[in-house]
Amino acid sequence: MSYNLLKGKRGIIFGALNEQSIAWKVAELAVEEGATITLSNTPVAVRMGEISALSDKLNCEVIPADATSVEDLEVVFQRSMEILGGKIDFVLHSIGMSPNVRKKNTYDNLDYNMLGKTLDISAISFHKMLQVAKKMNAIADYGSVVALSYIAAQRTFFGYNDMADAKSLLESICRSFGYIYGREHNVRINTISQSPTMTTAGSGVKGMDKLMDFSNRMSPLGNADADECANYCITMFSDLTRKVTMQTLFHDGGFSSMGMSLRAMVQYEKSFEEYCDENGNIIYG
Amino acid sequence: MSYNLLKGKRGIIFGALNEQSIAWKVAELAVEEGATITLSNTPVAVRMGEISALSDKLNCEVIPADATSVEDLEVVFQRSMEILGGKIDFVLHSIGMSPNVRKKNTYDNLDYNMLGKTLDISAISFHKMLQVAKKMNAIADYGSVVALSYIAAQRTFFGYNDMADAKSLLESICRSFGYIYGREHNVRINTISQSPTMTTAGSGVKGMDKLMDFSNRMSPLGNADADECANYCITMFSDLTRKVTMQTLFHDGGFSSMGMSLRAMVQYEKSFEEYCDENGNIIYG
Amino acid sequence: MSYNLLKGKRGIIFGALNEQSIAWKVAELAVEEGATITLSNTPVAVRMGEISALSDKLNCEVIPADATSVEDLEVVFQRSMEILGGKIDFVLHSIGMSPNVRKKNTYDNLDYNMLGKTLDISAISFHKMLQVAKKMNAIADYGSVVALSYIAAQRTFFGYNDMADAKSLLESICRSFGYIYGREHNVRINTISQSPTMTTAGSGVKGMDKLMDFSNRMSPLGNADADECANYCITMFSDLTRKVTMQTLFHDGGFSSMGMSLRAMVQYEKSFEEYCDENGNIIYG
Amino acid sequence: MSYNLLKGKRGIIFGALNEQSIAWKVAELAVEEGATITLSNTPVAVRMGEISALSDKLNCEVIPADATSVEDLEVVFQRSMEILGGKIDFVLHSIGMSPNVRKKNTYDNLDYNMLGKTLDISAISFHKMLQVAKKMNAIADYGSVVALSYIAAQRTFFGYNDMADAKSLLESICRSFGYIYGREHNVRINTISQSPTMTTAGSGVKGMDKLMDFSNRMSPLGNADADECANYCITMFSDLTRKVTMQTLFHDGGFSSMGMSLRAMVQYEKSFEEYCDENGNIIYG
Repeated sequence: MSYNLLKGKRGIIFGALNEQSIAWKVAELAVEEGATITLSNTPVAVRMGEISALSDKLNCEVIPADATSVEDLEVVFQRSMEILGGKIDFVLHSIGMSPNVRKKNTYDNLDYNMLGKTLDISAISFHKMLQVAKKMNAIADYGSVVALSYIAAQRTFFGYNDMADAKSLLESICRSFGYIYGREHNVRINTISQSPTMTTAGSGVKGMDKLMDFSNRMSPLGNADADECANYCITMFSDLTRKVTMQTLFHDGGFSSMGMSLRAMVQYEKSFEEYCDENGNIIYG
Repeated sequence: MSYNLLKGKRGIIFGALNEQSIAWKVAELAVEEGATITLSNTPVAVRMGEISALSDKLNCEVIPADATSVEDLEVVFQRSMEILGGKIDFVLHSIGMSPNVRKKNTYDNLDYNMLGKTLDISAISFHKMLQVAKKMNAIADYGSVVALSYIAAQRTFFGYNDMADAKSLLESICRSFGYIYGREHNVRINTISQSPTMTTAGSGVKGMDKLMDFSNRMSPLGNADADECANYCITMFSDLTRKVTMQTLFHDGGFSSMGMSLRAMVQYEKSFEEYCDENGNIIYG
Repeated sequence: MSYNLLKGKRGIIFGALNEQSIAWKVAELAVEEGATITLSNTPVAVRMGEISALSDKLNCEVIPADATSVEDLEVVFQRSMEILGGKIDFVLHSIGMSPNVRKKNTYDNLDYNMLGKTLDISAISFHKMLQVAKKMNAIADYGSVVALSYIAAQRTFFGYNDMADAKSLLESICRSFGYIYGREHNVRINTISQSPTMTTAGSGVKGMDKLMDFSNRMSPLGNADADECANYCITMFSDLTRKVTMQTLFHDGGFSSMGMSLRAMVQYEKSFEEYCDENGNIIYG
Repeated sequence: MSYNLLKGKRGIIFGALNEQSIAWKVAELAVEEGATITLSNTPVAVRMGEISALSDKLNCEVIPADATSVEDLEVVFQRSMEILGGKIDFVLHSIGMSPNVRKKNTYDNLDYNMLGKTLDISAISFHKMLQVAKKMNAIADYGSVVALSYIAAQRTFFGYNDMADAKSLLESICRSFGYIYGREHNVRINTISQSPTMTTAGSGVKGMDKLMDFSNRMSPLGNADADECANYCITMFSDLTRKVTMQTLFHDGGFSSMGMSLRAMVQYEKSFEEYCDENGNIIYG
């Protein structure tokens, strides 16, 4: 069922890799809701990934681009306007990667070249995208831009490493550029701080499954999944949210407002149980 | 134009007084988007206000109720379910009043009976509403509840007085009950922290026009108005935001994320101008 | 060892009950640091508690008072100024109680008279204290007022019940009155949001020991105890923090900035362990 | 008058330039409070600045270092331990610079090499400092590290430009590393978010004087100055705050908790005044 919430709108979706990707779901739903779109991802991802299947399904073009390259981003916006026939109404930034995490460098043993890359890929790319778009005047007035974030921007999660710093930087860029682009073109810029999600990117994070379990039990509504995230993105791209800007919007089943839930604590308490045999004798202390 | 976002949904709107009211706009838009609703306000407001005109226009019933009365609230939910033919999918709480503000008692000279009333009317009524609904199992699973708030819950605005404390309490109730109602019925509960709005309630606040000017110049997108707030409420009532809960959602053109805008500062700087006559002589220092 | 940080200062400490109380520790340390003080608690607490032992030890007077009574509070400030020989330099508010928690009323089954009492005792008493003091001009310019809070004001902890709402209200009063008292008398007002602490009050909270274990493992520095809290209070009463006001100051070993620690997760993961006998056979699934 | 709060402690102060510098004041006060310290700044600053006068006055050594150079930082910690005779108890990071601001590149026209430098100098240098110290085990258990920040990390101030993003990143690093260093060595790491201060660095920011006027009128206690900031830093270095970590501590006279003060609004309203001559005739509309 479609509401036609994005009827006639033009969008660019950065970061769809495969069916698990949030960006993939957003692309599908945006088209369902009446938008025409282009897709973009790195040349490597385009070659390796399954994005051409998505492109076929949605009948939309893929524009390979390194999101840390200003030139590449110029091509994405230029081509997208040509293909879609006008200025862009919405953009999704779903891009993040940490070479330090990949190389298993702990946070107190960071490689600083890699940290630079983490920040460039995961956060500064967002600034580049916006600066390029603004210089080209490529985003229509009252357009909407969303980047995906995670609560590690506010609170420390072991193992999330320098991605936490990248997300903080990303959310700051959202505010800083949201002010500029808002006052001049009424473009709104927000981040959606999403539950941990079992995407290809997410699955690389250390202890991800147990963290997701904890997060799920802490959240009264459970973790939000990729489909639900796509739903939320659509409302932010629609004309119904025109005065929401410079915000970190938590889409997490309530996790961000929880200190401790009964469900998580019941599970936690199990960890202290004495292990007894059927006669009540302790086996392991 | 309608998206049918609330097709088949049943709602209760508390607090519509006249055409300026945010609740009034939400009621109109909810019906436009396919919902059937009931309206509720105090018996006095029902007698004095223009709510019957709204009721006629939308072809919906008005159920008078004092929102601080558990019995009255039981009637509202009971009657609404009968009239609308099933459990309630969404609720708007747009209720607030401070006798201390009305009596011009300053914050360091509060009447404590009046403070009790401010909190009861503006915040505890929200708890009563939710507790009544939950006991009656009157809100459908995956339902959505929204209360209107203001950033005075986080930051002090002179003259907003004990309403600031009421809004803090309101947002806390949103979180506390959001946990309970979420885990048991997947009902989500949020507050929308709205720009200052020139409603009948808003117009009573001291220096409201200049505050609105400042707020407008600080916000890159300008103040959000009542119509825009109604749009946002609709997205929160729709099925597209099912994992958003226990949040304070700022709907304010960016105000909450601003420290100082150029527009506001340019205006502020004017206040220091020397006043000169045409010959450049200072008139008033 | 003493630093003489409060040399010559006069203070009032509300809420010392017994040796476990944070207020008790603050009283001891304040005197050690050179202050002269009075103590206040409810008439019942004064009769039942061990506060007279503290009074003897510190050679200071106890002024019984119901902190919800404006008249009683007037007596406390009046008598304290007489006894201590001048205006008051610092005040500690360590008062909180929920009849709903005591009666085991869950948050979706609150008794509203009791909720009124929770708010009056735990939060509005703070406003009354400040309003009384300001009307009597009883706090010296550049004085410092601290109330104890808990992170439940921001995030929901199951079982903390309506005390969460009371703490939110308390922190709001801190901001609202901090503005007024600051601009007029340079008095600063803050709350210290303390780790869960095994005081008499704390020990009544459901599942307190396991919550404290979790909190301790989440916090890189572990939970802060009552002695450490007293240390922190002293810095806030000293002349070294004169421009800190209207803040919630987290004193919690880092808990408030944590999403998940390795230590807490290692413990959590144990809850999923299969229980095997020495041959590796699962005993309980 | 001294409290001997830092008696026997060893510290390193990064960033003292001249008498206006906060770091300068902190250095003076730390010594007054019984600490022995070393100073560090860039080779250029050491040559050009007045830091040798401070070094003479306090009888402490200056170790020139580029804070973006891991090697230089190693030297600073190594030499400091040698000179001071043991591990370091406290560190102040007061370092920030934006080439984009210097070159008057607006935020929508950033030079990305310069952005990289802004982040490296103003934020990543903090990580490098901590990583170097931890690898050398140069900070004593229960040590304390403070970096200076600004509320632009949370809210957008026009003209603050990419320094806002740097401050967000800085505060994130404080949390991320605070977790690691806390759990392993009980070292606490915080930022102090200071009022705008008329230091050499501050004076470069666009419209700084009017912003400071606004900030001052908004804050019930007025802006905090450099001397007051030094006082606050000392409490954070002392043993009285051992469980405070991973926090952004606002030291701003209340600014961060204000939405609008009467004083600021009275000034703002003047900007709308009609300018009349003595007969009440409007001169300029």
